[in-house]
Amino acid sequence: MFRQSQKWHAENKIVAIVPTMGALHEGHISLIRAAKSKADKVIVSIFVNPTQFGPNEDYDNYPRTLSEDIKKCREAGVDVVFSPSVPAMYPDNSSTWVNEDVLSQYLCGTRRKGHFRGVCTIVLKLFMICSPDIAIFGQKDAQQSIIICRMVRDLNIPVKIIVAPIKRESDGLAISSRNKYLSPKEREQATVIYKGLQEVKKWQKEKLSVAQIRRKLIRFIQQEKDIRIDYISIVNVDTISEITRPDKGDKLLIAVAVFFNKARLIDNIEIKW
Amino acid sequence: MFRQSQKWHAENKIVAIVPTMGALHEGHISLIRAAKSKADKVIVSIFVNPTQFGPNEDYDNYPRTLSEDIKKCREAGVDVVFSPSVPAMYPDNSSTWVNEDVLSQYLCGTRRKGHFRGVCTIVLKLFMICSPDIAIFGQKDAQQSIIICRMVRDLNIPVKIIVAPIKRESDGLAISSRNKYLSPKEREQATVIYKGLQEVKKWQKEKLSVAQIRRKLIRFIQQEKDIRIDYISIVNVDTISEITRPDKGDKLLIAVAVFFNKARLIDNIEIKW
Repeated sequence: MFRQSQKWHAENKIVAIVPTMGALHEGHISLIRAAKSKADKVIVSIFVNPTQFGPNEDYDNYPRTLSEDIKKCREAGVDVVFSPSVPAMYPDNSSTWVNEDVLSQYLCGTRRKGHFRGVCTIVLKLFMICSPDIAIFGQKDAQQSIIICRMVRDLNIPVKIIVAPIKRESDGLAISSRNKYLSPKEREQATVIYKGLQEVKKWQKEKLSVAQIRRKLIRFIQQEKDIRIDYISIVNVDTISEITRPDKGDKLLIAVAVFFNKARLIDNIEIKW
Repeated sequence: MFRQSQKWHAENKIVAIVPTMGALHEGHISLIRAAKSKADKVIVSIFVNPTQFGPNEDYDNYPRTLSEDIKKCREAGVDVVFSPSVPAMYPDNSSTWVNEDVLSQYLCGTRRKGHFRGVCTIVLKLFMICSPDIAIFGQKDAQQSIIICRMVRDLNIPVKIIVAPIKRESDGLAISSRNKYLSPKEREQATVIYKGLQEVKKWQKEKLSVAQIRRKLIRFIQQEKDIRIDYISIVNVDTISEITRPDKGDKLLIAVAVFFNKARLIDNIEIKW
């Protein structure tokens, strides 16, 4: 993979990577489209990365649909699908990890211990193997995108990160591989998440405080009794730390993580205060 | 730096880096010579890396001789000296680190908390900035070389690591920037370290056990009363873990770290059992 990429660089081609865990859906396809609009050659990596799953998470059950994924990549005009095995990526005595220590302490980081260590490590590895000029990540995983940008800056990694907008179903639900876990009823209830996030803009216009907005959003989402809220946080986009009195012009991330029965879903919007 | 290196790659030049903390001496020059013999272009980085020094170590007093270093590099035929400032390498809110978790737990790692985290992080950063094909490290820092090789493998870093032999003074003392800390008397006493390591081969021929050799080496070095032993360890070269009953053919590292008054000196030899 590295040599292929070096060959492309020698031909002055811009190379983009879209790192995925497979089970490709319209969200991924929109990332691939973003990659194609910015680069001459597009690599899609498909790797369900064990090190970013906690012991009680859904690694074993995570949907794996490689042959369909490859077909979708072909249709989307992807140049290379890179789909390594777990032992190829993690030899038995692997012992080196990339840790982002600050931004990883908030939101999903507090709930999913070791998650961002796994993410940072695999992303760096994929960058080393695929040698892209550009990498596309989705805004849906907002914290991930922010941490990857920090990692790239801190470690001087010569890859430009592009964060592409969240792709949504027609009723607003953020498209996710984990939506497959939802029953039809839960799928219907899940629309309350984005509806709530849309309300935020209205509440902001009504001059509610950050704390008031947060409380109203919690109440709004809890209309659906089958949903258990993991967190609803309003944070500074740059530091991911909770913010109570933003200054005018501050960019805030409203981040939501909820559990249905088996599924954990996340969504977010950014607003300017 | 990255662009210059990319230009060299485009011209099919092999690029080598010799990462140093400056205060260049014959040991470094021998690494530069090794680099020149393997590569078309040689970069020497000079950066006293604060993150690999512990709070009570010699960061502030570490010798800094940049103008002399640059002169020596020019004489040695180095193509580029890369000497960044601390704030350029570590912006205020830097938060990403590379950790090697296993091999770093032995020898110097137990004594110098965070040392190898600092080493791995800065080396990865230098690799990203300088984009070398090859990097030269010294066998004097044996554990460092082993950990860097592990990091490069684990993170799929496309850099070939070459470990060059220890350069010694005519009386056998391993050349080190920290030898400058020694008084004339201590400088004389310090020769006992390598003399002891040379004795090991004799003791091995006499069929002494690993434990016996270790005890004899401790006693040999303690002939010099001003020396305080930090550790004397006999470890497997691959795992850096203590070994008591090696199999025939095993490669062992005999590693020594000692304190004089201000100076901490290390040395080592490899033997085949």
